[in-house]
Amino acid sequence: MIVVMKAGASEKQINTVVKRVELDGFATRLVQGTERTIVCVLGDGRPKEGRIYEVLDGVEKTTRVLRPFKLTSREMQPMDSTVPLNGVQVGEPEIAIIAGPCSVESREQLLETAHAVKEAGAIALRGGAFKPRSSPYSFQGMGEEGLKILAEAREQTGLPIVTEVMAPELVPLVGEYADVLQIGARNMQNYDLLKAVGKSECSVLLKRGLMSTIEELLMSAEYILSGGNKNVMLCERGIRTFEKYTRNTTDINAIPVLKDLTHIPVILDPSHGVGKWAYVAAVARAGIAAGADGLIVEVHPHPEEALSDGAQSLKPEKFAELVQQVRAIAASIGRN
Amino acid sequence: MIVVMKAGASEKQINTVVKRVELDGFATRLVQGTERTIVCVLGDGRPKEGRIYEVLDGVEKTTRVLRPFKLTSREMQPMDSTVPLNGVQVGEPEIAIIAGPCSVESREQLLETAHAVKEAGAIALRGGAFKPRSSPYSFQGMGEEGLKILAEAREQTGLPIVTEVMAPELVPLVGEYADVLQIGARNMQNYDLLKAVGKSECSVLLKRGLMSTIEELLMSAEYILSGGNKNVMLCERGIRTFEKYTRNTTDINAIPVLKDLTHIPVILDPSHGVGKWAYVAAVARAGIAAGADGLIVEVHPHPEEALSDGAQSLKPEKFAELVQQVRAIAASIGRN
Amino acid sequence: MIVVMKAGASEKQINTVVKRVELDGFATRLVQGTERTIVCVLGDGRPKEGRIYEVLDGVEKTTRVLRPFKLTSREMQPMDSTVPLNGVQVGEPEIAIIAGPCSVESREQLLETAHAVKEAGAIALRGGAFKPRSSPYSFQGMGEEGLKILAEAREQTGLPIVTEVMAPELVPLVGEYADVLQIGARNMQNYDLLKAVGKSECSVLLKRGLMSTIEELLMSAEYILSGGNKNVMLCERGIRTFEKYTRNTTDINAIPVLKDLTHIPVILDPSHGVGKWAYVAAVARAGIAAGADGLIVEVHPHPEEALSDGAQSLKPEKFAELVQQVRAIAASIGRN
Amino acid sequence: MIVVMKAGASEKQINTVVKRVELDGFATRLVQGTERTIVCVLGDGRPKEGRIYEVLDGVEKTTRVLRPFKLTSREMQPMDSTVPLNGVQVGEPEIAIIAGPCSVESREQLLETAHAVKEAGAIALRGGAFKPRSSPYSFQGMGEEGLKILAEAREQTGLPIVTEVMAPELVPLVGEYADVLQIGARNMQNYDLLKAVGKSECSVLLKRGLMSTIEELLMSAEYILSGGNKNVMLCERGIRTFEKYTRNTTDINAIPVLKDLTHIPVILDPSHGVGKWAYVAAVARAGIAAGADGLIVEVHPHPEEALSDGAQSLKPEKFAELVQQVRAIAASIGRN
Repeated sequence: MIVVMKAGASEKQINTVVKRVELDGFATRLVQGTERTIVCVLGDGRPKEGRIYEVLDGVEKTTRVLRPFKLTSREMQPMDSTVPLNGVQVGEPEIAIIAGPCSVESREQLLETAHAVKEAGAIALRGGAFKPRSSPYSFQGMGEEGLKILAEAREQTGLPIVTEVMAPELVPLVGEYADVLQIGARNMQNYDLLKAVGKSECSVLLKRGLMSTIEELLMSAEYILSGGNKNVMLCERGIRTFEKYTRNTTDINAIPVLKDLTHIPVILDPSHGVGKWAYVAAVARAGIAAGADGLIVEVHPHPEEALSDGAQSLKPEKFAELVQQVRAIAASIGRN
Repeated sequence: MIVVMKAGASEKQINTVVKRVELDGFATRLVQGTERTIVCVLGDGRPKEGRIYEVLDGVEKTTRVLRPFKLTSREMQPMDSTVPLNGVQVGEPEIAIIAGPCSVESREQLLETAHAVKEAGAIALRGGAFKPRSSPYSFQGMGEEGLKILAEAREQTGLPIVTEVMAPELVPLVGEYADVLQIGARNMQNYDLLKAVGKSECSVLLKRGLMSTIEELLMSAEYILSGGNKNVMLCERGIRTFEKYTRNTTDINAIPVLKDLTHIPVILDPSHGVGKWAYVAAVARAGIAAGADGLIVEVHPHPEEALSDGAQSLKPEKFAELVQQVRAIAASIGRN
Repeated sequence: MIVVMKAGASEKQINTVVKRVELDGFATRLVQGTERTIVCVLGDGRPKEGRIYEVLDGVEKTTRVLRPFKLTSREMQPMDSTVPLNGVQVGEPEIAIIAGPCSVESREQLLETAHAVKEAGAIALRGGAFKPRSSPYSFQGMGEEGLKILAEAREQTGLPIVTEVMAPELVPLVGEYADVLQIGARNMQNYDLLKAVGKSECSVLLKRGLMSTIEELLMSAEYILSGGNKNVMLCERGIRTFEKYTRNTTDINAIPVLKDLTHIPVILDPSHGVGKWAYVAAVARAGIAAGADGLIVEVHPHPEEALSDGAQSLKPEKFAELVQQVRAIAASIGRN
Repeated sequence: MIVVMKAGASEKQINTVVKRVELDGFATRLVQGTERTIVCVLGDGRPKEGRIYEVLDGVEKTTRVLRPFKLTSREMQPMDSTVPLNGVQVGEPEIAIIAGPCSVESREQLLETAHAVKEAGAIALRGGAFKPRSSPYSFQGMGEEGLKILAEAREQTGLPIVTEVMAPELVPLVGEYADVLQIGARNMQNYDLLKAVGKSECSVLLKRGLMSTIEELLMSAEYILSGGNKNVMLCERGIRTFEKYTRNTTDINAIPVLKDLTHIPVILDPSHGVGKWAYVAAVARAGIAAGADGLIVEVHPHPEEALSDGAQSLKPEKFAELVQQVRAIAASIGRN
C-alpha cells in the first residue's frame, strides 16, 4: 500500500502517518518526490482497509499495490483449475455448454427442453426452481417441486442440473437435487450465502453482479474458495451501463482479463448479456472466440409462453444452430 | 402496455399478437400509424412480463404504460406516510438525523459515540453488528455481542437503534434488539430477506442498491409493504457511476423524484454517497435542501482507528457542526 | 409517438394535449385503458422533440414509436452498403483490417510500421497527425508534416490512409492526403464537423463516442449521409462504464445490434476497447465472431517509446498472430 | 508516478524499467515489498503518459502520484478566483443566477423572457443561437440572427449574454455579441475550440461533458487557462448513468470536490441535471446548499411551444419562486 501525502504536508503530519502505519504492524519507507512525499507500507495489507489512512491530516490518497484476492489468483496457482461436469473438465480445451429454461414452469416444459438441449449438444441442464423477481407480483418459481422435476429430467437425460440457490438455509435442500449451485447476479455479494456454498459438496457457478467489478467478482469467489469448495466457475452475464438498447452490456473484455487474473474457469451467459434472442448467437460466438470455457444459454420450446425471460430465450432449433457455430469457432482456435 | 410492430409487419403477424395478448386475458386496441401499427393492451398488466411479446414475429418492442409498483405509489396513497422514531414522525416537516459508527467495534467506542451524537442532536443511533464485507479477510462484525452493546447504548441514551440484518433467518434475532432494521444496499434485491422484514414488527430502513434504479427501489419496498409492514423508510446512498474521484455518486435527483412517486419517507446517507469525510457536510446540506426527510451519517470518535469506513466518518465535533448547518437549511425551507 | 396521461388526468387536460398535438400537424387517436389514457400521435414525428408534451398538465411521459434515424436505417435500405477500401468492399464477407500507430511520430516510425502491417495482412494504414489529447501538456501530433509522411507511406506500400480530422476547417487539408477521414470518439457529436465530412469525397470512419448510445451513433451517421456522403463505416471502440480494470468496456452487443438496425458496415477497435495490449487479440477475435466487418488495430514497432497509446499497441509480430487468428475465426463463420 | 512490478518480476526486468524511466529524465527509487517491488519515479511526470511503462515486461500497473492539472489547481492558487459578471464577482459569497431559454427562437420570445428573468432576479441571460442537436432533422438554432436578438435583449435589460460557441472559427463572431462564451457538454473535449476561447477576451462557461470525469473537466479548463484566459467558470450539468428516470444524474458530489480541488468558480445547471421542470427547483436548492457559486436555469414563457428543452424549462413565475428559495438557502449558509 502507498500513502500519498498532500503537497506541502508537514514533517509532523508525515511522522503521524508513519507511526500510525507502524502501529498496525507494517514497516514503512519514505520516498520524497519533487512535490509530494509518499509513504510505502511494507507487508501484506490485504486484511486492512487502506482508505482509513486518508482520514489523517495531510494525506491525499492511498493506493493499493497488492491485489486484494489470494486463493483465486493466478499468482497463487498458475495452472488452470478445472471443474468436472458430465465427463468434461470445464477449464480444459473442451467447451462446456449448459442450456435450459430460465424457470422450471411444468414437468412437460422442462422434460421437453431437457431432451432438446441434450440432442443439440448441451452437457448440462439449467433451470430455476427458486426465482429472484424484481416484482412481488411476478411468478416466483415452483420451489421444491421444481427441484424434483429437474431431478427427473436428469434421470431421463443424464444431464447434470445447474440451479439457483437464493438463501443460506436453502443450500442443503437445493444441494440435495442439484449438481451445480448457481449464485445469481443479485446475490453475488450475499456473503452468508457465499459462506454456505463454500461448505457445500456441490460445484458452484458464481454469476457476476450486474454492477460489480471484476475484482469484486474475484473477492466473492475468494469467500467460496476460503470456505473449502474448489469447484467454482465464474460467469460473466452482462453489466449495467448507460446503453439501454440491450438489456445489459456483455463485458467481453472480462473474459481475457479473468483468464489472466485467475485460474478459475470462465463461462459466458449471452442470454442475459444481450437480452434479446436474436442477438444471443452472435454474442455466444464472441465469448468462445475471446476464450470463455463454456456458455450458459436460455432455451425454451415456446418462448412466447415463458413465465420469465421469454424475450431472450432461444427455441431448440436456434440453439442447435448456435451449438454448431460455437463448435466451429472453438475448433478454429484449437479447442473442441 | 403497448406492443410496437415493425414497419411492414404483416396482418397475420399483427393478428397473432392480438390473439396472444387476448389469451392472457387483456383487451386490445389497434392503432395504425403512418409507418407502424401499435397494439394497445388494456388491463392491469403489472404481473405480466411485457417483454415476452417481443419474441413474436413482427414485434419491434414493448413499452409499459402503468408504473410497476402499486402500494408504494403516491397514486394509491396521495398523503405522505410517516414512520415514528423517538417522538418524531419521519416524513413530517421535522428532520430526522440518525448517526453512529459504521460498525460496533467495542463497548467503549459505541457508548462514547452514542452520547456524542445524542448531544449533537441525533434522534437515533446507527451501528452495524453484522457487516457485509467484500473481502473475507476483513472484520465481519461483532454479531450478537454487538447487538447487546447497542441495546445498552439505547438504555443509557434513549436513542432507538438502527442496525443491519443480512439474512432472513436473523430477522427475529436482530429484531429483538433493534428498533429499525436496515436492509443494506447489497441486499436490496434479496427477496427472501425483504419478505422476512415485511412480516417484522420493526420499522425498516431500505437502502437503494448501488446498481439499482429508482423503480427497482420502489419494487423492493413493494415487497415489504405487501408483506404487511408499513413502517418503511427509503434511503438514497449513492450509485455507482464512471466517476471514481468519489466512492459513489449521490443521486440527488432521486430525492425529489421519490417524493413525487411515493408517499414513503426518504432519508439520505451522505457518508456512503460521497465516501470522504471532508465532503459529507456539503452533501448532507444538499439532501435536506432537495427535500429529504432525514439523514443517516457515519460518526466515529477516532476515525483513523475505525475497523470500517473510517475515511468517510465524521468526528463528533464535525457532526455537531453538520447538524447546525442542516437545521439552518431546514428552517430556510420551512422545516424544522 | 405516444403520450401517456397520468392516472386521473381530467378530460380537459386530455383535450389540451390533443389540441396541442394537432396544432403541430399530427392526427391523434385516444385509447382509454383501465387506469390511464394514452394519446397516440400519428404522422412522422422524427423532427419533433416529443418530450415537449411532458410539460402539459396531466402528462406522465411520452414514448417514441418510430426510430429517430432514417437514411441509416435498414428499414430504408435493407441491403448492406459497402465501402471500397483497397480493393475490398467493406461490408461484404471479406474482413477488412486497418492497422498502424496511434500517432505519426516520425518518418522512420511510420514507414517501418506501414511495411510491417502490410506484410502481416492489413489493407489500410491508420495513423494520427492531429491528436486530441486530454492534457495540454501532452504531444499534440505532427500536423500537416504527419500527413505528408502518411502519404509517403501510401506511396511505398500502396496502403490507403485512415487519419483523424478534428475541426471542420481542416477537412479540405486532411482530405487532400487521406483516403478515409476518421471522426474520433470525442467528436462524434461535433455536428459542424459531421456536416463538413458529409460533403467530402473521402470515405468516413465514424467512431462511437465513449459516452454515446447506439442510437446517437446512428443519428451522427445520419448527419453524414444526409450531407450526401454514403461511404460511411461505423466503429465500436468501447464505452465508459464503472469497470476500471480495463480502459473502456468493448460493447460487443453493439455489433449484432448495429448489423440489425443499419446497412452501414461496422468495424471494431479492440485496442481502445480494452486498452491493454495483452487482451487485444482476444477482443479482436470476439469482434469478428460477433459479425464485425473489420478491425482497426494499433500497432507500434516499439510500444514502450510510443508518444501515445503505447500500452495498448501491439508489436508487429503480435499483430501478425492476431491476423492469423482472426482469419481462422472468419473462415469458421463463412467469411474470408 | 509509481510503477508496480508483478510478483516475481526478475531483477533484469526491474533494471529495464529503471533504465527506461531514467532515459525519460526522471530519477528513480526502488522499494522492495514482501510480494512486489515498486519503482518510484521522481520528477514532474505530468506531460508523460505513465501507462506507457505498462508495456514493459514484468510491469503490473502504473499509478499517478501528482494531479494531472496545474493552473486550475488550488495547490497552485489557494485563493478563489472570481469572474466579473454584471457587477457580481462570481466566486465570492454572492450567488450568481443566469437564466433564459435553451434556444433563441424569436425576438418576441427572447425579449419577453429576458425581462421576466431580470425581474425575478437573474443577473445574466442565457440563450443559444447555435445549437448542437443530436438529430439533423431538429431545429439547429437561428445563428447570427439569434446573436443580434440577444444583443438587443442586453440593450433593453442590461443583462450580459451567455451563449454557446460550437466551432473554433466562430469564436470571433460569437465573441462580438456575447459576454460569456459557453462551451457545451458535447464540446468539453473539443481541444481546438478550447484553445480558441483560451485566446478570447470573453469569459468562458465550461460545461462538464455528460460522461467526463471531474479530472477531465479540470484538464479541459487547463487548456483555456494555459491559453491566457483566466475568466473561466465550471458548470456541473449532470452525468450519464444507468438511471433513466431522469435525463441525467446531477453529480452533486462534484460541487464540494471541485471547490476543494480548484480555485475556479462552480455553477450548477439543474435544468439539464434533472431534465424535468418539476424537479428543477429542488436540485437548484441542493446545488446552492452544497456550495455552488451560482446557477444556470432554463426559463421559457411558453415551455410547451419551445423548440428545444421545453420539458425542463420553468415558466417565469416558477423561476421567480426558485430564486426566492435559493436566496433563503444561500442566506442560511452565510451567502447572499
